[in-house]
Amino acid sequence: MAKAQSSSYFVILALSIAVNLLLVFQFCVDGEWRLTWSKRAAEEAERVAAIPCSGHGTAYLDGLVLDGKEPVCECNSCYEGPDCSEFVTECAANADSGDPYFLQPFWMQHAAQSAVLVAGWHRMGYSYPDGSYISAELEGHIRELHSTVGNAVTQGRYIVFGAGSTQLLNAAVHALSSDNSSNSSSPASVVATIPYYRLYKTQTEFFRSLDYRFEGDTSSFLNISEAGKVIEFVTSPNNPDGKLNKAVLHGPNASAIYDRVYYWPHFTAIPNPADDDLMLFSLSKLTGHAGSRFGWAVIKNESVYQKMTEYMSSSSMGVSRDAQLRALKLINVVLETRGKQIFEFGYHTMRNRWESLSKILSLSNRFSLQKLGPRYCTYFKKIRGPSPGNVSTNSRIFSLSIIEYKMSIIPPLS
Amino acid sequence: MAKAQSSSYFVILALSIAVNLLLVFQFCVDGEWRLTWSKRAAEEAERVAAIPCSGHGTAYLDGLVLDGKEPVCECNSCYEGPDCSEFVTECAANADSGDPYFLQPFWMQHAAQSAVLVAGWHRMGYSYPDGSYISAELEGHIRELHSTVGNAVTQGRYIVFGAGSTQLLNAAVHALSSDNSSNSSSPASVVATIPYYRLYKTQTEFFRSLDYRFEGDTSSFLNISEAGKVIEFVTSPNNPDGKLNKAVLHGPNASAIYDRVYYWPHFTAIPNPADDDLMLFSLSKLTGHAGSRFGWAVIKNESVYQKMTEYMSSSSMGVSRDAQLRALKLINVVLETRGKQIFEFGYHTMRNRWESLSKILSLSNRFSLQKLGPRYCTYFKKIRGPSPGNVSTNSRIFSLSIIEYKMSIIPPLS
Repeated sequence: MAKAQSSSYFVILALSIAVNLLLVFQFCVDGEWRLTWSKRAAEEAERVAAIPCSGHGTAYLDGLVLDGKEPVCECNSCYEGPDCSEFVTECAANADSGDPYFLQPFWMQHAAQSAVLVAGWHRMGYSYPDGSYISAELEGHIRELHSTVGNAVTQGRYIVFGAGSTQLLNAAVHALSSDNSSNSSSPASVVATIPYYRLYKTQTEFFRSLDYRFEGDTSSFLNISEAGKVIEFVTSPNNPDGKLNKAVLHGPNASAIYDRVYYWPHFTAIPNPADDDLMLFSLSKLTGHAGSRFGWAVIKNESVYQKMTEYMSSSSMGVSRDAQLRALKLINVVLETRGKQIFEFGYHTMRNRWESLSKILSLSNRFSLQKLGPRYCTYFKKIRGPSPGNVSTNSRIFSLSIIEYKMSIIPPLS
Repeated sequence: MAKAQSSSYFVILALSIAVNLLLVFQFCVDGEWRLTWSKRAAEEAERVAAIPCSGHGTAYLDGLVLDGKEPVCECNSCYEGPDCSEFVTECAANADSGDPYFLQPFWMQHAAQSAVLVAGWHRMGYSYPDGSYISAELEGHIRELHSTVGNAVTQGRYIVFGAGSTQLLNAAVHALSSDNSSNSSSPASVVATIPYYRLYKTQTEFFRSLDYRFEGDTSSFLNISEAGKVIEFVTSPNNPDGKLNKAVLHGPNASAIYDRVYYWPHFTAIPNPADDDLMLFSLSKLTGHAGSRFGWAVIKNESVYQKMTEYMSSSSMGVSRDAQLRALKLINVVLETRGKQIFEFGYHTMRNRWESLSKILSLSNRFSLQKLGPRYCTYFKKIRGPSPGNVSTNSRIFSLSIIEYKMSIIPPLS
């Protein structure tokens, strides 16, 4: 009897020791035991991320906070209420904004790879070790990205960072208009082909510079031979009609700023690597992080590069190092699968929305969509149907950014 | 015998179960078991932070990476080598830069409170829920901070964010020069009292606006009654001489931009809350985070506020939301002790450096420091000796930012 009792103790003891070992193993090998100062921030982020908002909204670390210290849910369009559970009937579609929320689910699925923990002492100084305002590691990642995707030549080209492509638009206009090669005293003419992104006009006019002036549609400059310096904005793929535009004006006095923010495989087929003199890209359109305000310019000419660098220095001492850290992490996630995961996800999401929208608009007598045929994409190595980021109807007065917009459903349009 | 064996088994079993319970308790109550997707980022940050760099440098998450994937040490001035262990003899002091590394040890001491974990889907959209580019929570924190420190009136005032005070300098010049109240067609004159921060001149000239022109020293405008619109930069406390300057020009055509970046208790005694029409502050000088590029303007006049908001929108669509999240976290740490910890730390560090520098320069025949007497500080509620952020020698040709600089030692100067 005693022997039986003793051996059953032995079994229980062996089990208990096994559990001990398992727990210690978990504790140590798992690596969690090592976390000290970073734990609080990690827990805080997970707590905020766990607020469900009924699946129709998001709570943010820097969002407004309730009395109970819980961040408030920020609801998607057409939803409201403290937990975003109330559907707003008769909710109108916002046709004037291009928030890139369509990639939010992708980043939620890649939570572990894309999170960044910023230490309290991260990059307190003004410059990186080479004295610049640009992270060399991030610049290297951007070059690798373009070479992987095959959408732009960067070898032997200069790179400048800006607060989104927005800040770089004016930096480019400044650089091209103040170039010393022409001694013309009259301001350079800045033009764009209709329909164009309205910021080209508003921003160029806003700065009221002695060096440049917005002059409207490109076509009015086609037959002027001695027009002085002309800077042409070229959006390729174009917003809102999706076309791979090329510069219309040529000659010694003409230069072009290629806005290439949509030249990624989720928005368009990539026929070849772009090799324009001055090209702009942005994180907003690549990964969907409009809020980070991060963009970059790829530049052939050294003096234009230096003028744009000087612009960034004088206007804001470069781009926030926090935004650069974030961009590095996000581009790293894109590169982990050579872009495959994000571009496949983005392409299918946009393509589905395009098809839904085509279907809805086909019921309308007032609007119809332009026809976009399938094209061969060198990145996907196959023929792909259209998945444009922005959409214009052929009435030409109504441009829809709705495809990119933060929507839980597509609200009725007609 | 069997009984003795059995009871010893029992004791061991009881111990083993106790250890199990302890481990499970640790696992659950400690909260670590909950971490899932945030763990990788937290571990990565702790691994980078653990790279010692011999105590004379820092490794950063976005720094250059060695082949073994380990970030490279970035060395403090006068140190070099892969682990920053080699002291550079004959190392000259950099007298032309004001990197705020003197607060780096403070943030290392407050690692847990100041860390931020940014989720992959943080703030992907362009705007906050109110449609602005400004975090309402951060704006609230900034108002609370000024009210706690007593260095600026913010009640009934508007707040605009910028990429450091740098971007706001030009936003303010733009807003004050394009004000419709005066219909003068000639550009506004922008002036500053010598010695002034050189960016006032370089930036104002850089933008080559039709609306304003840099005209040099304020004194040349003192006797001109009908000079047209004049915008005066006033740095208070002044950089480099530490004086609490006031605007010199008055009248219906004169307006002032008060650069108040050094108006914090670690740099100067606070005699009263500043209540100027347009005041600029920055995170760089408050918490030492120059790299985040975050600043704010406190503005009395609604139309000036609207013009500055429009400037931020047109030039960069606001400030990076990543930088805003970071600023929120850092200001939160400052507020946790009503500023006591950081201002005491900053004051003592700056004061010790000032005393060391005074001692070294007293040995020189060529340089001497201006005399700064002790003053009553309403924040510390006592009389405090000088601790200026920047230093100028009375030769007036040599301005030293050395006190703020990233140094492990003060290198020989004379």
